[in-house]
Amino acid sequence: MIISIIGRGNVAFHLSKAFANNHELHCVNPHTLEGLPDNSDIVIIAVKDDAIGEVASKLRGRALCIAHTSGSVAMNILEGCAAHTGVIYPLQTFSKEKALNYEEIPFFIEGSDETAENLLSGVALSISGSVRKADSSQRELIHIAAVFACNFVNHLIGIANEILAEGDMDYKLLLPLIKETIDKLNILPPHEAQTGPAARKDMGIVGSHIDKLNYKPDLRQIYSLLSERIMTHKEVEK
Amino acid sequence: MIISIIGRGNVAFHLSKAFANNHELHCVNPHTLEGLPDNSDIVIIAVKDDAIGEVASKLRGRALCIAHTSGSVAMNILEGCAAHTGVIYPLQTFSKEKALNYEEIPFFIEGSDETAENLLSGVALSISGSVRKADSSQRELIHIAAVFACNFVNHLIGIANEILAEGDMDYKLLLPLIKETIDKLNILPPHEAQTGPAARKDMGIVGSHIDKLNYKPDLRQIYSLLSERIMTHKEVEK
Repeated sequence: MIISIIGRGNVAFHLSKAFANNHELHCVNPHTLEGLPDNSDIVIIAVKDDAIGEVASKLRGRALCIAHTSGSVAMNILEGCAAHTGVIYPLQTFSKEKALNYEEIPFFIEGSDETAENLLSGVALSISGSVRKADSSQRELIHIAAVFACNFVNHLIGIANEILAEGDMDYKLLLPLIKETIDKLNILPPHEAQTGPAARKDMGIVGSHIDKLNYKPDLRQIYSLLSERIMTHKEVEK
Repeated sequence: MIISIIGRGNVAFHLSKAFANNHELHCVNPHTLEGLPDNSDIVIIAVKDDAIGEVASKLRGRALCIAHTSGSVAMNILEGCAAHTGVIYPLQTFSKEKALNYEEIPFFIEGSDETAENLLSGVALSISGSVRKADSSQRELIHIAAVFACNFVNHLIGIANEILAEGDMDYKLLLPLIKETIDKLNILPPHEAQTGPAARKDMGIVGSHIDKLNYKPDLRQIYSLLSERIMTHKEVEK
């Protein structure tokens, strides 16, 4: 089976690398659309979301199955480009600097028909042990959830880094704490694992932290909003 | 050396357990102040922040060294309670349900004098490989940073859980992504590791996510505020 991957970004880089390790697949990652093999079984479009439509229109009829990898673009953007169209969405954060264990990456598959679903599930299963179906609406929820759990989490750790720098300290001090925070989620759901001043409704500490953040109004606002959400949310659960 | 730990919470539970594994220390965790041994060398007060002052006043003169474990209470609350006073602050999230590798927990020490610092560093080093000094102001910064990097991170994962539940999916799907997000911080500082729609300034996706969160105004507000912070912060760094 010949798989062609279109794109020069992190997702294209890692998917090409993962497929290349599988000897039953022949995977190419051409530099230009002109370099695309004429006999591709599957073409995977791993380009920026707002370029998917244009790339897809140029690929019309060039493969049995055409799919994109985006969390937030609906499958129907590929309508009419191939007999079988779909989405193969890897839920992971990709950087070229960091190798990945592909086996653990969850892949979410959507297909225009059963053939598309089977083709895309097959290639996903060739590199990952975690493959399941998700329609466009579920995939968008997954993407939004991932923004909170990955992009925003990373930014909060960046904020912690900024705060520690005020006292000449390094964010790496926090890594054991962060690791434990995450490890705990294997045994407790996040709302049960919640600790800290807001969860305890310790308004003395919450207030003194907000005072100490006076020098950075944006951080004070984020601290207040998230503390309030933790306090309100606990009320709702009771 | 006899160490007494005052408190019935998670920190008291875990510190008692950790010290009990060390045969050179004799550690007790009495149920009441009356049960406190008269010959304690060090008394560690691990109670709620707003109870530390009252407990300390009842312990006046009952040990060579008296310390508390709080991130956000200044050392001087213990002034006059013992010849040597201080703080031994473990940077970790403690739950009774979850065992810990104490060796990796960073401890921050403050002492009223060198004797207090040496006594408290000594007991911390008996259970952890990561012990350093931090004054009350640095400790408050560490505590605020920990609220962002642990308590708020956990809550964001809770929010991701709520969002996935809308599509009948479970937060455990996100754990490999979260693990990779954290692992990456061993090789890249958080601001360099930042990915996602806001970091790419992909306003199409940011806008469609905010639309999709219309059903939950609090989540929409958190999404907007954090996306804006990511975008602004990148501008500042350039």
